[in-house]
Amino acid sequence: MAILSELATEVVIPVAAAIGIAFAVVQWVLVSRVKLSPAAAGGGKNGGYGDYLIEEEEGLNDHNVVVKCAEIQNAISEGATSFLFTEYQYVGVFMSIFAVVIFLFLGSVEGFSTKSQPCTYSKDKYCKPALFNALFSTVAFLLGAITSLVSGFLGMKIATYANARTTLEARKGVGKAFITAFRSGAVMGFLLASSGLVVLYIAINVFKLYYVDDWEGLFESITGYGLGGSSMALFGRVGGGIYTKAADVGADLVGKVERNIPEDDPRNPAVIADNVGDNVGDIAGMGSDLFGSYAESSCAALVVASISSFGINHDFTAMCFPLLVSSVGIIVCLITTLFATDFFEIKAVKEIEPALKKQLIISTALMTVGIAIISWLALPAKFTIFNFGAQKEVTNWGLFFCVAIGLWAGLIIGFVTEYYTSNAYSPVQDVADSCRTGAATNVIFGLALGYKSVIIPIFAIAVSIYVSFSIAAMYGIAVAALGMLSTIATGLAIDAYGPISDNAGGIAEMAGMSHRIRERTDALDAAGNTTAAIGKGFAIGSAALVSLALFGAFVSRAGVKVVDVLSPKVFIGLIVGAMLPYWFSAMTMKSVGSAALKMVEEVRRQFNTIPGLMEGTGKPDYATCVKISTDASIKEMIPPGALVMLTPLIVGTLFGVETLSGVLAGALVSGVQIAISASNTGGAWDNAKKYIEAGASEHARSLGPKGSDCHKAAVIGDTIGDPLKDTSGPSLNILIKLMAVESLVFAPFFATHGGLLFKYF
Amino acid sequence: MAILSELATEVVIPVAAAIGIAFAVVQWVLVSRVKLSPAAAGGGKNGGYGDYLIEEEEGLNDHNVVVKCAEIQNAISEGATSFLFTEYQYVGVFMSIFAVVIFLFLGSVEGFSTKSQPCTYSKDKYCKPALFNALFSTVAFLLGAITSLVSGFLGMKIATYANARTTLEARKGVGKAFITAFRSGAVMGFLLASSGLVVLYIAINVFKLYYVDDWEGLFESITGYGLGGSSMALFGRVGGGIYTKAADVGADLVGKVERNIPEDDPRNPAVIADNVGDNVGDIAGMGSDLFGSYAESSCAALVVASISSFGINHDFTAMCFPLLVSSVGIIVCLITTLFATDFFEIKAVKEIEPALKKQLIISTALMTVGIAIISWLALPAKFTIFNFGAQKEVTNWGLFFCVAIGLWAGLIIGFVTEYYTSNAYSPVQDVADSCRTGAATNVIFGLALGYKSVIIPIFAIAVSIYVSFSIAAMYGIAVAALGMLSTIATGLAIDAYGPISDNAGGIAEMAGMSHRIRERTDALDAAGNTTAAIGKGFAIGSAALVSLALFGAFVSRAGVKVVDVLSPKVFIGLIVGAMLPYWFSAMTMKSVGSAALKMVEEVRRQFNTIPGLMEGTGKPDYATCVKISTDASIKEMIPPGALVMLTPLIVGTLFGVETLSGVLAGALVSGVQIAISASNTGGAWDNAKKYIEAGASEHARSLGPKGSDCHKAAVIGDTIGDPLKDTSGPSLNILIKLMAVESLVFAPFFATHGGLLFKYF
Repeated sequence: MAILSELATEVVIPVAAAIGIAFAVVQWVLVSRVKLSPAAAGGGKNGGYGDYLIEEEEGLNDHNVVVKCAEIQNAISEGATSFLFTEYQYVGVFMSIFAVVIFLFLGSVEGFSTKSQPCTYSKDKYCKPALFNALFSTVAFLLGAITSLVSGFLGMKIATYANARTTLEARKGVGKAFITAFRSGAVMGFLLASSGLVVLYIAINVFKLYYVDDWEGLFESITGYGLGGSSMALFGRVGGGIYTKAADVGADLVGKVERNIPEDDPRNPAVIADNVGDNVGDIAGMGSDLFGSYAESSCAALVVASISSFGINHDFTAMCFPLLVSSVGIIVCLITTLFATDFFEIKAVKEIEPALKKQLIISTALMTVGIAIISWLALPAKFTIFNFGAQKEVTNWGLFFCVAIGLWAGLIIGFVTEYYTSNAYSPVQDVADSCRTGAATNVIFGLALGYKSVIIPIFAIAVSIYVSFSIAAMYGIAVAALGMLSTIATGLAIDAYGPISDNAGGIAEMAGMSHRIRERTDALDAAGNTTAAIGKGFAIGSAALVSLALFGAFVSRAGVKVVDVLSPKVFIGLIVGAMLPYWFSAMTMKSVGSAALKMVEEVRRQFNTIPGLMEGTGKPDYATCVKISTDASIKEMIPPGALVMLTPLIVGTLFGVETLSGVLAGALVSGVQIAISASNTGGAWDNAKKYIEAGASEHARSLGPKGSDCHKAAVIGDTIGDPLKDTSGPSLNILIKLMAVESLVFAPFFATHGGLLFKYF
Repeated sequence: MAILSELATEVVIPVAAAIGIAFAVVQWVLVSRVKLSPAAAGGGKNGGYGDYLIEEEEGLNDHNVVVKCAEIQNAISEGATSFLFTEYQYVGVFMSIFAVVIFLFLGSVEGFSTKSQPCTYSKDKYCKPALFNALFSTVAFLLGAITSLVSGFLGMKIATYANARTTLEARKGVGKAFITAFRSGAVMGFLLASSGLVVLYIAINVFKLYYVDDWEGLFESITGYGLGGSSMALFGRVGGGIYTKAADVGADLVGKVERNIPEDDPRNPAVIADNVGDNVGDIAGMGSDLFGSYAESSCAALVVASISSFGINHDFTAMCFPLLVSSVGIIVCLITTLFATDFFEIKAVKEIEPALKKQLIISTALMTVGIAIISWLALPAKFTIFNFGAQKEVTNWGLFFCVAIGLWAGLIIGFVTEYYTSNAYSPVQDVADSCRTGAATNVIFGLALGYKSVIIPIFAIAVSIYVSFSIAAMYGIAVAALGMLSTIATGLAIDAYGPISDNAGGIAEMAGMSHRIRERTDALDAAGNTTAAIGKGFAIGSAALVSLALFGAFVSRAGVKVVDVLSPKVFIGLIVGAMLPYWFSAMTMKSVGSAALKMVEEVRRQFNTIPGLMEGTGKPDYATCVKISTDASIKEMIPPGALVMLTPLIVGTLFGVETLSGVLAGALVSGVQIAISASNTGGAWDNAKKYIEAGASEHARSLGPKGSDCHKAAVIGDTIGDPLKDTSGPSLNILIKLMAVESLVFAPFFATHGGLLFKYF
């Protein structure tokens, strides 16, 4: 048995979660010391930080600016809240219907009988009736959806709370602004990681009251939690992604390209919609997404563990290993965060990116130690893991290795992503250079860069899969995914930091603050683009591992012995599955395009009809633009959402589990490539543009300045990259995870009633 | 036994091939009646056609124009010949080395022993020694390479012969020009289809002299023919593709965008390189490619048949079923061609596309009858087919159905491609419309269109695979591929027609002919863009089926029992395989981009330094541009070529046949999607631009004219699409086929010596 007792486990997990939440609150309090009312603006200056920054402070006494920032922040916050409420209404309806579907489908497995049934894996025992599994799965599904929803909403609230405060701190220097933005990101990161952990922990304990020692049924139902989290994330990502990019593309096309006014200029009617979009898309959407990944990888590990020796022997501590890894992760990330906010201080622009990168390295290094300790404490020295019908013997050190390889593969993916998307390295500089010959070569080079950036991450994922599977079968892959996500709090913090800085820049522009302040927020933002790409890299890498683990669990649960590519049933699934990411991307990109066209027309209309708008004397009608984005994203998120949610149901029901296995494998291996290349291409274009704008080197200056032909070409690339990197790309990892987790949840139904077409023809 | 006797088979195949060649010669004679010397220009007018075209004839008596056309044609022809010779020298070296590799690897299977060995499938019999299989495979490889090389070269020669003649005929009206261009395409189509058939037929008969009744060894060696054809095609496509697009992009970027001179303007120094490119890339490259597909699908079918009852019973007629299908195809295509050239006459621009579409429909309909007849004549009523160790019983009607479903799936793919790439339908019009808001939305819409265009073709391929596999296992898939390619002569004719028309337009522009003539060739070219996309659709669809059949044959030969996605060895292969098309595309697109940059610099330099160039008084230095394209494509074709050629060797040797199976399946399911979307996206952008230029509808005119902002945005899209549709996209189907056929050829080696890494770790 494990060294850590069951009681200790029951204590450690909630305590770690509580510490995480407390830390988030502390960070929030620190951020809130930056006052958004003129009287206290001076107070913020002495709000707990030393004043030894070498950069010049400026505009600190201009109270009008503070009032203006507060106004803009309110407008953004209101817009975001109102959009999310509208979105949640529609998604709520969908979720309710889907909950009923889950209950009916799963309940029908044993014909809604309330009698106990022989267990699926331990044939000699009796397990709880399928009807109750259906009920608990449905409850878990709703719980996951609600947690995800709350995570996204809180994230958005925190971000909008932090935006203007970052702007105001930027007056004091880049270091202060960095700390504010980063602390706000940390609030979100720790809140999400902790609440995800604690809700899952409580759910397991509550469900256990009914299931007692039927752990097979218990963890099968818990999987609904992952499905709920991911379904919500899908709509969050797609809806938010369409919202933000419709507004962004629309605003840029008329403002920057046609009217030659700067980005985020308050005269641009779409500017508020654009800033709202950053908060609902990049923040709320991404929060839901990473929460979904976390929930799913935990569920995948738990469901495999429940049919391994941990579950069979009812070894609760070992069973909770995935949750314990996450608990350690929270503590590790807490220490890591202090390195950015307290142990060191940013003093110059060029220190920002290294500081963020250090976060990744420190958290990974510390976490390796943390995993070693928890593997030693929480796992028996030797145990067996379910491996497609057989049991495979594994040591605790072997399992440590699985988690660690996932963790380090994540770091590698992160750094490769950074290399391809940061303008400090040659790939992005080459893309920027290709703007000399116009937008077309910029796009060609950008696409090629995205394709190329896939190579190393895929090798990293392949090696992780091979090693972790060789050691501990599907459980190994599930914990490798968990390892990659174990530093999620830090990952989310640096991920959320990007849009916060972006919005801070927007607010600075709109509030009419000086050019220098905008330069500081731009520097924060450029680093943010890279970290956003790194975050997406993590999300995609972990999604690949998670969905493979879920896929393995599904195959086990559905009783498929072998998924043979040479069987035509599997192969057609494989090729159609590989096509799904394209179908999905076509829908989302077209949606962004159409919504952007509408936005462009409205913005043009306002410029043409509102007198004095260009001169700054007329006031634009922000609300109409917000409405266009809202309506478009609500309407357009339904078809791609339905595609993802319905495909496993239709394929499983009509074609059966073999074809569905093919679809899952095809969507996984094809989707992960498009997701990586789309998000890196977009990130590279964005930073190529910023590289030219910043003009930090001789080479960059030869391409600029803003408004030059090169810069115009770069703006076109940036605009094309928007839907790639913020709508279709990141939604794809939800696609592959969600189809896998949904298949797993519905596996009992498919195994019993699936494959109607092949049965009758 | 089959109704058709062995003797009849031995007669039918060469006779059909001879008819095909004769027909090609007749068409060539008809084309050559258009004289390229001033004295005879009037003679061309009465050269066998009636003169009842309603369009006005013009410029018939301007002898200078004819002289100029002849000059330009010579320049293009010389450039193309010189490039192909250079290319063939480099490829020749590579091929020679690879031939040695094949011999050594395959020879080593039995340790270079000259003793007979037990057969692989019929264990009770003795087969020829592995050393001789190695020798004959090497010979077949070289034969395939040479046939492919000659095919490409002849195609190029015919095309350059036809270009100026099409231009001159355009003076008499669009109908005459169409017939000339189409006839020239037919020369190439029939020559390739017939020579491919006859060389394969002779090789089989010659090899049989040695192998006698060891058909297993005979057809295993013959597979080298497919490998040779495809290897050559790879270099042809990649090298030619880089050449043509570097020149095209370079010429457009400076000429059209910066200097505002028309496309193909003789003042543009890259104009000759651009026209040479069309001939070496689109014509020679595509010729080699489709020849490769044809050779491979025949080989795949033959190798499966040899271990089925046809081979075991030594039923020569049934064995030659794939060749008989191709023979019937030649006759059917011959009749089909007459519909375009003799039975009906094109009188107006709007009739061009329907005429080409009719070609597809007529050939498919006739071919269905042809297949039915040959299935009835050449196949026994019942026979058995090898199915991964077992023998599956099949009827001749079942096999007819397999061929027919491939044929019709090809037609569906063709029509879907047409729908998405022709500017007569809403998808391209939407893309054109999105140019209102600039290049960015144009690119976003174009990418979305390409992604969307994948859906139906994939379903068509999936259905073909499922049905044909259910009926006749891997043999069913191989003959379905053959069915799709059975109308290759017509396919090639309409495919080659495109670049010929394109070049004709270029020559018209360069020779300073009137605007109306250019409009006529543009109309031909717009239809040509669509047919080129259709041709690519066929090539990709058939490549998917062919490589699946080859993959099946490889798995059988390598003795793999099951390719289980859930085995980590296979899965890592799958995900890495799915990545390869991205790696490959990254290389080829970057190559085009870099070469285009060099071209742009050179063209700019010439415009800046040669006095009077813009005014038309100075003469540009065409040769330097030709040299830039040549050097770039020779240098840049090596890395992607090596990636494709070496991957199966490395994976098979180090990781073994299971991982290699995964790689093949992954590359197939992922590559086919990128190939379709890339080629359709590019086609759509090209035609969206042409739609705006032609201004044929109210809507189109509202976007134009040439030089408007919309048009500029469309030109950017067109330029981005160039490498997608003509370099990376079409090369991908060679990637998937070539890796599969190479794996099959090396299967005996991998089965004996493969998987070193896993053996020792």
